[in-house]
Amino acid sequence: MRELDPERTVWRNGEKADSATVQLDLADPAIQHGLGLFETLAVRDGRCVDLDAHLDRLISDAFKFLERPIERAAVRAALQSSAAEKPDEPGWVKLIVTGGGEWFVFGGAVDPAEEGRPIRAVILPWRRGPAGPLSGMKTLNYGANVLGLRYARERSTEEGLWFNHRGRLLEGCWSNVFVWRQGKLYTPSTREGLLSGVVRARVIDAAKELGIAVHDGPLKIKRLLHADHVFVTSSLRGLCPVTHIDGRAVGRAGKDEVVTRLSRSIGRRHPEVPGVTFS
Amino acid sequence: MRELDPERTVWRNGEKADSATVQLDLADPAIQHGLGLFETLAVRDGRCVDLDAHLDRLISDAFKFLERPIERAAVRAALQSSAAEKPDEPGWVKLIVTGGGEWFVFGGAVDPAEEGRPIRAVILPWRRGPAGPLSGMKTLNYGANVLGLRYARERSTEEGLWFNHRGRLLEGCWSNVFVWRQGKLYTPSTREGLLSGVVRARVIDAAKELGIAVHDGPLKIKRLLHADHVFVTSSLRGLCPVTHIDGRAVGRAGKDEVVTRLSRSIGRRHPEVPGVTFS
Repeated sequence: MRELDPERTVWRNGEKADSATVQLDLADPAIQHGLGLFETLAVRDGRCVDLDAHLDRLISDAFKFLERPIERAAVRAALQSSAAEKPDEPGWVKLIVTGGGEWFVFGGAVDPAEEGRPIRAVILPWRRGPAGPLSGMKTLNYGANVLGLRYARERSTEEGLWFNHRGRLLEGCWSNVFVWRQGKLYTPSTREGLLSGVVRARVIDAAKELGIAVHDGPLKIKRLLHADHVFVTSSLRGLCPVTHIDGRAVGRAGKDEVVTRLSRSIGRRHPEVPGVTFS
Repeated sequence: MRELDPERTVWRNGEKADSATVQLDLADPAIQHGLGLFETLAVRDGRCVDLDAHLDRLISDAFKFLERPIERAAVRAALQSSAAEKPDEPGWVKLIVTGGGEWFVFGGAVDPAEEGRPIRAVILPWRRGPAGPLSGMKTLNYGANVLGLRYARERSTEEGLWFNHRGRLLEGCWSNVFVWRQGKLYTPSTREGLLSGVVRARVIDAAKELGIAVHDGPLKIKRLLHADHVFVTSSLRGLCPVTHIDGRAVGRAGKDEVVTRLSRSIGRRHPEVPGVTFS
């Protein structure tokens, strides 16, 4: 589970560091109590995709969770420098900010075949409760998602879906979820306590532009299983159709043109978003 | 928020390390995804209190969460060595085990005045949901407790109480909770998804020995506020009476003899448990 890629420079507090030995002080609250935040961004053509949207979210959460400001210009420069390092290689960069006031930037290559690739999903056996103090923040308290994804992989699927105590869909372990049914687009509301993804926002904007109504009300299991089409979104993989949930085929053949329409719309203005259709 | 005390040796994977510079590889899943566990133990007379109960819990959770075994003998030896370092100084030792396979032992001194000290508590404004995949495990995903305790301290109290989505008491940010009412002892059930503390188990055993019935069924806010007595338990502070909840006095004068009886019963067999009455 090593995530550092020694092929890209690691930045520590604005300085280049040796990727083989970069370490964090054991006393840092990020280790002691999970007091830290992160962002993972796609890199295309030597640039970070949606850099400012990611930084806005992190900086806002840093005030709430870490009670400290972030040196936006310095963090931005390190992310851009990392992205520019390999202009011809699609990749990812990750930013970690700790409660002890340290920040790290590192990254690696992505497999372009993962972008937009159809996936299978399972409904996780646990239910998540009402929105807690960490809801909506991308923190280092990611253990539940690790276990959720492990559960999914043990069942030969790529994503695990979280539902809340009322049986409403929240999100995946690494994605936001959209449901297309009878000409309407549904996605769980941020009010339920989920992570509001950057690509999720792009999809909602594109739908509005195309005159597609977006409903962010309650989304029960039944509606998910009877959808015309289901897809998930993530910063690294873009829009990925979901072909199976709990082993059962979802969506109807010929109905996935909504993903094509949405990704074309996004791609016209933001061709750098992973997995979108450019034409 | 530094928690390492440079006055005691830090152990890293069974070797002594320099407490001023001990660091964890940034790639370790403990930092990347909160994939790690910890235990905090009291030290009395140069020995770890309830060492095996703490190790049993950690080793069991390590299989489930980290998918790796723990070198029990080596970890035990480091904890004992740390405890023996200052035989005349009451203290604490903390063990961290990471998803990357590293483990650390470090510790410091405690203020004996904190043991058994009456505290004030607040009801946290968030509700916790059904038991999730991390429920009952003492993991490094402690961000919600950090925010809970911050909320409590901003209101000049020492503890924040978690309730679930059904309005039932779960636990405190650093403690388990007991309610004494009309000769019966109540404590939230582990089935609700709470951390089953080592001192909590001692109290339940002591109650049985004294012929006091222990009920671990649902515990609503109303019962808490109308208790004859409320107290919390922790490995470092022992049994602490709760004098106020949300600024309102709880418990009735002269009714806290139950804490005295329970702590005497524990103290007869385990005089090393912090905060118990020895007489």
